Amino acid sequence: MNSVFFSIALSLDGYMVPKEMDFAHADNFAEQPWFRQWSALTQWIFRQRFFREMLRIGEGGETGRDNALLESVFARTGASIMGKRMFDGGERSWPEEAPFHTAVFVVTHEVRDPWIRPGGTTFYFVNDGIDSALRQAREAAGDRDVRIAGGPTLIQQYLRAGLVDEFMLSVAPVLFGDGQRLFDGTGTLPITLTETIASTDVTHLRYTVNG
Amino acid sequence: MNSVFFSIALSLDGYMVPKEMDFAHADNFAEQPWFRQWSALTQWIFRQRFFREMLRIGEGGETGRDNALLESVFARTGASIMGKRMFDGGERSWPEEAPFHTAVFVVTHEVRDPWIRPGGTTFYFVNDGIDSALRQAREAAGDRDVRIAGGPTLIQQYLRAGLVDEFMLSVAPVLFGDGQRLFDGTGTLPITLTETIASTDVTHLRYTVNG
Repeated sequence: MNSVFFSIALSLDGYMVPKEMDFAHADNFAEQPWFRQWSALTQWIFRQRFFREMLRIGEGGETGRDNALLESVFARTGASIMGKRMFDGGERSWPEEAPFHTAVFVVTHEVRDPWIRPGGTTFYFVNDGIDSALRQAREAAGDRDVRIAGGPTLIQQYLRAGLVDEFMLSVAPVLFGDGQRLFDGTGTLPITLTETIASTDVTHLRYTVNG
Repeated sequence: MNSVFFSIALSLDGYMVPKEMDFAHADNFAEQPWFRQWSALTQWIFRQRFFREMLRIGEGGETGRDNALLESVFARTGASIMGKRMFDGGERSWPEEAPFHTAVFVVTHEVRDPWIRPGGTTFYFVNDGIDSALRQAREAAGDRDVRIAGGPTLIQQYLRAGLVDEFMLSVAPVLFGDGQRLFDGTGTLPITLTETIASTDVTHLRYTVNG
């Protein structure tokens, strides 16, 4: 059976999202107060060649271990699940060829026909909850894995439901002080450290959730 | 000038202390609900030869990188500062030869004469706040460094006051779900990752606070 995982950037004080960050409704991101924090969290990603290609950001980029890590996460992902807020932010900022190239299931109350993008990404809007989204994602993923893409609220729902098999945290040297934490109301799941990857300015930590 | 640092064990969800943990007033630690969580956080320490010797726990123990790390923290520490709750717990559980072998400044409202222990540890009870405690500790430390030993409340006070130069977090693969966090109301200090040390079941992360 497919493995269900998430792979996210995390501030050292445990936040996924700075206070009041809102990609879906903000104009001029770079002028928003949360932008500096979010940049500190994600700047290592924007330097990687694979990410720059997928997001159509520009030529070049690093091709070392961090880049290989992003490639491997992409390669293993047969389908993704995301929350509506994340989708709304992405709908405004992804290139036309959305960076998934698989089925993506958006958990939402909004009723909407599948949105087919060039390059193999189709967004399906799931109105009957996280179990249904996972069932559909498993089927679409074939023998690859299912990624819970985010945001924090959706990942927390899957954690609380005991449906996550493994996760990777890319811990950046930044303190947010406030915002939305990953581990908040998610309880005491038993976990095992499986790998530590030290990079220049970020530490990747991989864990499995013990079944 | 001496460096001011702390070096602590942290759960993956950012807690230093499990909910309702109280070494100072609990009997039969091992039967307390918080003991399993605290053990998961600290079990790697209890396996190290240096710690076992210092705490008079028993013969043997590991002599690898984790052990060397504990030795180096001890070697650089010329004086420690701790909160009253941590002292109260330790007073009940340290061996007669307390495991500091330096001056230790206890920040407390309690007025008490210095408590001299065999082996070079003297506890001084400081009633006029964290600045005074740090001033005294710097003087006692000579050309070695000052360690803020804990607990979380005291470390947070020093962090908020901008008085910490560096810190090491030993992140254990355990989720507490509740308790006392390290980073809670400590704001957005700028930090730099200086070292990642991957061990068997814990990850040591060193940071400097940018002055």
